[in-house]
Amino acid sequence: MFARVHVVGHGRLGSAVSARLAERGVLAAGADADLIVLCVPDRAISEVAQKTSTGPWIAHMSGAVPLSALSPHQRRFGVHPLQTFRIGGGPEQLDGASAAVTAENAEARERGRWLAGCLNLKPFDLDEDKRVLYHAGATMASNFLVTLYRASRQLVEAAGAPPEGLLTLMRRTIDNGFELTGPISRGDWATVEAHLAAIHEQGAQEIEDLYRAMARATRP
Amino acid sequence: MFARVHVVGHGRLGSAVSARLAERGVLAAGADADLIVLCVPDRAISEVAQKTSTGPWIAHMSGAVPLSALSPHQRRFGVHPLQTFRIGGGPEQLDGASAAVTAENAEARERGRWLAGCLNLKPFDLDEDKRVLYHAGATMASNFLVTLYRASRQLVEAAGAPPEGLLTLMRRTIDNGFELTGPISRGDWATVEAHLAAIHEQGAQEIEDLYRAMARATRP
Repeated sequence: MFARVHVVGHGRLGSAVSARLAERGVLAAGADADLIVLCVPDRAISEVAQKTSTGPWIAHMSGAVPLSALSPHQRRFGVHPLQTFRIGGGPEQLDGASAAVTAENAEARERGRWLAGCLNLKPFDLDEDKRVLYHAGATMASNFLVTLYRASRQLVEAAGAPPEGLLTLMRRTIDNGFELTGPISRGDWATVEAHLAAIHEQGAQEIEDLYRAMARATRP
Repeated sequence: MFARVHVVGHGRLGSAVSARLAERGVLAAGADADLIVLCVPDRAISEVAQKTSTGPWIAHMSGAVPLSALSPHQRRFGVHPLQTFRIGGGPEQLDGASAAVTAENAEARERGRWLAGCLNLKPFDLDEDKRVLYHAGATMASNFLVTLYRASRQLVEAAGAPPEGLLTLMRRTIDNGFELTGPISRGDWATVEAHLAAIHEQGAQEIEDLYRAMARATRP
């Protein structure tokens, strides 16, 4: 479908994408590409798109940015890997991840699915007007998982306990299909109140607020 | 150290503990046990302890309950596995998990460490007066991970996207050492505001509150 794909941007995502396209034999220098893939920061997408000559197809790989940011290009689509990437990581980071394909017509969608498949991502269709909601969910699952870990680690360390066991616990929670156990599942609100008092005593206001919002959302 | 360990309670934890002690050849019926391990619900610990004849050692496996709940027994300790357990799961659930050992003297601590080791748990010492803080951290890491997943799943499904990819994303976030990526790590508050507006439009007030508390705690 595309024989010469040019990637703009060599950050966390762009490096992995370029490496995978090179493995597939379709990575190209800029000049005669038939697809240009923007892996630049969200805020730079519109400017880079405007500076790119129209003619070939263009795509971005952002979760948050609308396809209209690729204007004036009309032959355009989006592929957003539902994944988090390391600096200096390889193309294997793409393997097994899902990817949201956004497109404005069937031809663009087909091409978006081709790019996802080429990168070894599992594509699914995402409506352009549902993009922000989808991205909010993805951000919660990944970025706020970091926050949750940091907060729980802070409490466990303040208690003088080693935090390593939290990783084992969190992995098992995922493996067990996110089955709810613990005080809230048992309706044990006295323990919840004791937790809040102990956190309050630490002067950790943000963690206290977070615990409170989480506990409310956890109630059956 | 102990040759005949009797387990009271056969729920998620008690079943796994009994099965492991049987493997070790130290599981005993009640009569002549030299250690009684209470795996009953938190609220029942004190009552069961009071009804148990003093003489042998007694322990509980709760994170939240103080050792004083084991009164009038004085030969007592606590071992709390930092793990979540399935109904009907086997003793392999204990493997690799850490365990908080609480004790009031060196002899009790040594016996608590013995029980942890016997169960194939990695023991660490926990001060009794830090128990609640430790347990608050453990609860956040496990129970609130469930809440975080449910909330993000709700948003992703409302966007018409398949939620399975969230598991791959969350596992990778842990594997990457909880490195923060995404809009907040880039200081992209416009995207955060757009997320909040999209969640608000769904009428999902609890998720909106949760997102807000999480975003605040995520700020560098």
